[in-house]
Amino acid sequence: MPTIEQARAWYPEYDPVHGFDHILRVLHMAEYIAKAEGADLEIVRAAALLHDASGAETGGEKRSEHQHHSAEFAKEILRAESWPPERIAAVQHCIRAHRFRGDEAPQSLEAKVLFDADKLDVIGAFGVARTLAYDVVMHWPFHAAVSEQFLKTGIKVEGETHSSYHEFIFKLGKIIDRLHTKTAKHIGETRQTFLNDYFRQLDVEARGEI
Amino acid sequence: MPTIEQARAWYPEYDPVHGFDHILRVLHMAEYIAKAEGADLEIVRAAALLHDASGAETGGEKRSEHQHHSAEFAKEILRAESWPPERIAAVQHCIRAHRFRGDEAPQSLEAKVLFDADKLDVIGAFGVARTLAYDVVMHWPFHAAVSEQFLKTGIKVEGETHSSYHEFIFKLGKIIDRLHTKTAKHIGETRQTFLNDYFRQLDVEARGEI
Repeated sequence: MPTIEQARAWYPEYDPVHGFDHILRVLHMAEYIAKAEGADLEIVRAAALLHDASGAETGGEKRSEHQHHSAEFAKEILRAESWPPERIAAVQHCIRAHRFRGDEAPQSLEAKVLFDADKLDVIGAFGVARTLAYDVVMHWPFHAAVSEQFLKTGIKVEGETHSSYHEFIFKLGKIIDRLHTKTAKHIGETRQTFLNDYFRQLDVEARGEI
Repeated sequence: MPTIEQARAWYPEYDPVHGFDHILRVLHMAEYIAKAEGADLEIVRAAALLHDASGAETGGEKRSEHQHHSAEFAKEILRAESWPPERIAAVQHCIRAHRFRGDEAPQSLEAKVLFDADKLDVIGAFGVARTLAYDVVMHWPFHAAVSEQFLKTGIKVEGETHSSYHEFIFKLGKIIDRLHTKTAKHIGETRQTFLNDYFRQLDVEARGEI
């Protein structure tokens, strides 16, 4: 099993969205869910430490494929530790299936646990912070007016500025519905409400309501 | 009176903390408070549009003196518009006195209005976003452990990492007490509670409480 210190070296020194503090929160949460759901802790731990280890840098070019890069990287690391091939494959499935926009859905309990732990860090107070930080990295505003078309289809009209508020409207406000495990859904309720309240207040202030 | 479009050109194209969207929110809020409190609207408007117009860039070297740079810049702009000297001086006082850490406290009603409008954008949902954005610009974490010494004195122990949570503990959690006008205090109550709830939840999540 890779140590925390080993894993730290795989991540950039500073990344406000996919930095090592995110990995540590996901690890902690994944362990909690894995215990409650009876998942294989070793698989879950390795997958949590490795899930963003290659190509996940915020704003980086490889991001859209980072689940595959990280799964390949995981194979190298765990082979060097002489893990049996079927357990390496189990970790790789977790990593490949951790993304919303990925091409592989979580099948194993361990993959569901990692997916859920990762998504719980998208809602709540850190979810708010990470979403807003993404704006800063990309030079987007925190809030911009959302078109009727975007509201219905998630596709912006020409010239429509992207913002965290758009992310909230189309994806973040409904994360809870995408979680797999009962344990995560329970934890997610408070965090989803918290995030939704945040973006509703942001909208109120952006509109200049007093 | 400078127009919105004129004023837009004085501010950087993107600044997540002191950008033009901040100026527009402060202008809107300052007008509202000015009307409720019976302040001189023209002075307040000019001061709001000009208050961060020179040297206020987030992370910039001139930031600590930007109230003076902006007051000087205001003089040039308003002279060119043939404002009478005493009204230019009134605008300049508002601008010089808008900072917490400034050397000049707000004396006139107009200066109190600008101060309060500016501080209301430090709390609430945009206050949260701007504080977190400052972390991203400075490469600080959103949350780091706060020492006993910092809790008591606001001075970090050697090696203590700065974070938004530190800003909350020492300054942001008590902004409401620093506001001058009744109107702003009333608006600030909800926003102060909102910001405090945010940072308490951030702390809960950072500690790994589930």
